[in-house]
Amino acid sequence: MPTLKDATAIVGIAESRFAKRLEPTELELACDVIKAALDDAGIAPAEVDALSSFTMEDTLEFEVARALGLGDLTFFSQVGYGGGAGAGCIGHVAMALATGVANVGVVWRSRKRGDPRTRVWAKATDRVRDHWKWSRPAGLLRPVDEVAMLWRRYMHEYGATREQLAEVALACRAHANRNPRATMHDRPLTLDDYLSARWISEPLCLYDNCLESDGAVALVLVRAERARDCPHPPVFVHAFSQGLTRQYQLMTNYHGERPLMGASWATAAGLWHDADFGPQDVKVAQIYDAFSPLIPFTLEAFGFCGPGEGAAFGEDGALALGGSLPINTAGGSLSEAYIHGMNLINEGVRQMRGTSTAQVPDADTCLVTGAYVVPNGALLLRR
Amino acid sequence: MPTLKDATAIVGIAESRFAKRLEPTELELACDVIKAALDDAGIAPAEVDALSSFTMEDTLEFEVARALGLGDLTFFSQVGYGGGAGAGCIGHVAMALATGVANVGVVWRSRKRGDPRTRVWAKATDRVRDHWKWSRPAGLLRPVDEVAMLWRRYMHEYGATREQLAEVALACRAHANRNPRATMHDRPLTLDDYLSARWISEPLCLYDNCLESDGAVALVLVRAERARDCPHPPVFVHAFSQGLTRQYQLMTNYHGERPLMGASWATAAGLWHDADFGPQDVKVAQIYDAFSPLIPFTLEAFGFCGPGEGAAFGEDGALALGGSLPINTAGGSLSEAYIHGMNLINEGVRQMRGTSTAQVPDADTCLVTGAYVVPNGALLLRR
Repeated sequence: MPTLKDATAIVGIAESRFAKRLEPTELELACDVIKAALDDAGIAPAEVDALSSFTMEDTLEFEVARALGLGDLTFFSQVGYGGGAGAGCIGHVAMALATGVANVGVVWRSRKRGDPRTRVWAKATDRVRDHWKWSRPAGLLRPVDEVAMLWRRYMHEYGATREQLAEVALACRAHANRNPRATMHDRPLTLDDYLSARWISEPLCLYDNCLESDGAVALVLVRAERARDCPHPPVFVHAFSQGLTRQYQLMTNYHGERPLMGASWATAAGLWHDADFGPQDVKVAQIYDAFSPLIPFTLEAFGFCGPGEGAAFGEDGALALGGSLPINTAGGSLSEAYIHGMNLINEGVRQMRGTSTAQVPDADTCLVTGAYVVPNGALLLRR
Repeated sequence: MPTLKDATAIVGIAESRFAKRLEPTELELACDVIKAALDDAGIAPAEVDALSSFTMEDTLEFEVARALGLGDLTFFSQVGYGGGAGAGCIGHVAMALATGVANVGVVWRSRKRGDPRTRVWAKATDRVRDHWKWSRPAGLLRPVDEVAMLWRRYMHEYGATREQLAEVALACRAHANRNPRATMHDRPLTLDDYLSARWISEPLCLYDNCLESDGAVALVLVRAERARDCPHPPVFVHAFSQGLTRQYQLMTNYHGERPLMGASWATAAGLWHDADFGPQDVKVAQIYDAFSPLIPFTLEAFGFCGPGEGAAFGEDGALALGGSLPINTAGGSLSEAYIHGMNLINEGVRQMRGTSTAQVPDADTCLVTGAYVVPNGALLLRR
C-alpha cells in the first residue's frame, strides 16, 4: 500500500507579528506571510498549485491566489472544527503532493481575534442551533465552560490538582520568555500569580486560557526529492492522521461511556499506526493549548502516560525545556499567540531545523496536535 | 512518484427519492442514503473511517457518524464552492485511502432546496460582502445572471445560437424521460417548448436552469484490492484533479484577459496530465449543468472540441444517447434533480456498472465534472 511516510516535507515557514491589535487586514496578513513562507522555501508564487486552510478561514482561496500571483491550482481543501484543523490542512496538502495531484502546497491561517467582537462565542444569537441547543441553556456558553466541566470531572476522578495543571501554563510562559516574538515575552509568570488569578470558569483561571491574538501563519510543502534542494533542511511529514472518535459529541461527550475521551484518541491510533516510532521516541511536542487541561488529556491520548496520569506527568518540569517532553517551545497559544494552533506547527518546524529559541538538543522528531476536544489532526514531523 | 491512478474504487452508491418537497430532515436523508450506499457496497457502518462533503453541507460529520454508528474516523475534509465540490470530495477520500490514512470512505450531499426560502441567493442581506460587492450593485444578483452574461458574450464572439444551446436541455430531458427516478420523467420537452419558454435571465430561458430539489446522494470508496471483493463491479477512480485558474474571479472573470475562461481549464489540465487516455477515449460524460451554457464551456475546457466550438458540438444529437458523447444520462441537474451535482457522480458509476436507464453501450470510461464557473473538481472513472 502506498503511504504518506516521509514522502513530503515542510520547506518554508513564516508568521506575522503577533499582537492584540494589528493594522493590516486579514487578507493582507495572509498574503504577506504566504509570500514570506515561499521566500523562505526559495519557491516562486507561480509554482503554487495546492492550498488548504480552515473552514473558518475568512480569506478566500481565489483572492489569496489572485493577489499573490499563484499558479493554476489543482488541489484545495478546507478542514472544519477550528482549533482541530491545522494539522489536517498540512496532511491534506501532503496527500495531494504524495499522490501527484499537485506539486507545491501552501497552508495558511490569518485571523484577527484581538477584538472581542470577532469571537463567535461572544456573539448573541436569536436562536441556538444544532447540538448547542442541548448545552447552551444549561450554562455552557463558552468553550472554556465545557473544558472546565471536563477538568472538574478529571480532578474528581483522578485527584488531580491545580498545582499540577499550573505546570502547563508555567512551562509555556517560560518558553515564551525565551522567544522575542511571543506576546508574553516580557511577562514572567509564577505559581503564586497562577494560583491567585481570577476564575474564568472555575476551576479554570485566567492563565488556563489562551491569548486572543491578531496574526497570520503560513507553511510551504513539496515532495521529499525537491525538498532536499530547498534552502533549509527539509522537515518531513512522517505520519498524519485526523481523528473523530465513534459516538463523539462536541465538546464534552455527554452521552458517551467515557466522557473524558476526546477526539484525539482516534487521531493518536491513526497516527501511531502509520509511524516507524512510538511516543517514547518523541523528543518535543507542540500540543494544542487553547485551554491548559487539553495538555494532560492529549498526553494520555497519545500514550505518553496512562489514563489519569496526564496531570502528574508535568510535575518536576517535564514539560519545560530540559524536561522529558518539552511542549509548546515558542510559548504556545497560552503565551506566544493564539493563531488557532497554526503557530504550533511553525514551532515544530523550527525545532526540527534546530532554530527554536527554546531548542531541544538533538530533537529529531516532533509531535504536533490539534484540539483534543474537537475533531482534529496530528502530525509527526521528522528531521 | 506515487499516484492515485486506479488505486481506489467507488463500490457503493445510493440516492433518496428526488422531489420538490420531501418530508424527512436533511440529517435523516443523509443517514438513509449513506446506510443504503454501504449496503450496496456490502460494508458495515462501523468500518467507515473517512468522510468528505461540501463546506455548504448542513449535516455535520459527527452527527452523521454518531447516528449511523460509524467507526473512529481518521480522515475528514470539506470542499468549497458549492457546485464545484462533488468530484473534489471523491478525490479527497481517494487520496486518503491511497495513502493509507483511512480505509473506507463515504461522500454525501443532503439538501432540501425545493423551498425557495432555502436558496442563498434569494435571501436579502443587510450588506454585500467580499467580491460580490463588485457585481451585485450592477444587477448580477443571481448565479444565472452571471452565467447569462458569459453566454451573451459567447454568442457574440462565436455566433452561437439558442437552437444550439437547446440541444443541451433536450438531451438531458430525453435521458430523464428514460429514468423513472427523474423529476421530469413524465414531461417531454420539444424545441418549440424551449424557444417559447419565459426568460429567467435573457438570453437564458426557463429550460436553461436546473431544477430545485430535495434529496440526498451518497457514495462509498475503498482501495482497489478490496473493491474486487464487493458485490458490484468496482468503478475505479482513474484520475482526479481540482481546478482554479490563475487570476480567477468568481463567477465571471471580469478582470482576466479571457473572461470566458472558467476554473475548469485548470481542472482539465490537471486531470489529463494524470490520465492514461484522452478526451477522444471518453464514451460518456456527466457534466455539471446548473445552467446549460456550462456544457459547451466544459466541453471546450476538457478538449472535446476547440474554443468556440462547444455550442455547435451538440448539433445532430451528439449529447444524446446514440451520439458521440452522451451527457447526463440520468437527466442531470436540468431534468433529474439538482443535488448540487452529486447525482451526476452516481450516474457515472451506473454507466460504468452498465446499469443506467440510458446505458451507453461499451462505455468503459466516464468523465464527471463540477461547475465550470467556480473552482471545481473532475474525475475520470473507469470500469
